[in-house]
Amino acid sequence: MSTLETTPSPPEQKKVFLAAVDESEESMHALSWFANKILPASSSGHHRSTLVLLYIKPPRSLYLYPDDAGHMFSADVMTAMDKYRNDVAECVMLKAKRVCNEAAGNNDHHHVKVETMIENGDARDVICQVVDKLCVDVLVMGSHGYGPIKRAFLGSVSNHCAQNVKCPILIIKRPTSN
Amino acid sequence: MSTLETTPSPPEQKKVFLAAVDESEESMHALSWFANKILPASSSGHHRSTLVLLYIKPPRSLYLYPDDAGHMFSADVMTAMDKYRNDVAECVMLKAKRVCNEAAGNNDHHHVKVETMIENGDARDVICQVVDKLCVDVLVMGSHGYGPIKRAFLGSVSNHCAQNVKCPILIIKRPTSN
Repeated sequence: MSTLETTPSPPEQKKVFLAAVDESEESMHALSWFANKILPASSSGHHRSTLVLLYIKPPRSLYLYPDDAGHMFSADVMTAMDKYRNDVAECVMLKAKRVCNEAAGNNDHHHVKVETMIENGDARDVICQVVDKLCVDVLVMGSHGYGPIKRAFLGSVSNHCAQNVKCPILIIKRPTSN
Repeated sequence: MSTLETTPSPPEQKKVFLAAVDESEESMHALSWFANKILPASSSGHHRSTLVLLYIKPPRSLYLYPDDAGHMFSADVMTAMDKYRNDVAECVMLKAKRVCNEAAGNNDHHHVKVETMIENGDARDVICQVVDKLCVDVLVMGSHGYGPIKRAFLGSVSNHCAQNVKCPILIIKRPTSN
């Protein structure tokens, strides 16, 4: 056993954290764990780090399953569907920002800039694209980037990202016990 | 955009970090990145966190491929093989502790206890078992827990762990560019 002397990162190390969020409980747990356990210390110092909250609106088709028998949908249905997708995105972002604010309430002093980003498409592809575009230092996500229904059809987003993003990825599962 | 006030974790939050290391460059890069970028701040405060360096000696059979044509090996060969496995384990641990000491040289003040652990078996199973046994807070590993040869036969350890460990897992890839 040896001893390692350590201290917070140097002030000049400004970091960009990307947290992929969605309507799942895993997603909010992951954000909360990161915002309370890792972010405060990792962003300590006199620099400003940024936490980007990313929500990806899934394709319309996901909301049609399993009722989509191939028939056409009226403009009204499509409009209602788009409104629903926007409402879900807004709700998720409100929850995510509340999680960040609760973490802020448990902490103090250092500033982390929190930004929100809403995109469209396949979460697996969009997350990887945003990681490159923003030169993200650490990608944070729950063990599933999709809610339980969509996950069944689209598989694990976290597995895909772990294999494809270039930056370090922190995958946080929601405890099954307690 | 909102602002999040943060500060290092409370002193009572003593953490156990588990870094799975092996002879691969990905593994040492992951340990170095974590020890320099995350560990210092995450372990800041007046508490003592522990970083456990875990190396898993792979089964003898892995060292026999592709020369194992099914014939018996003499006791001398087996003894030499075991000595080689022990030498590799010792070499990996020396490199890993050097990485930690270099990170310590870049930092200051706070103490992180560094411990080493050498186990035998399939890294995928052993890592998951050790995570449970030590009540690990964060598992840290490279994008591959095996070297290039063994990986080809045993697949990605990080994928397996990401799907099976209960604790948060930080997967760090070695940059392909620069």
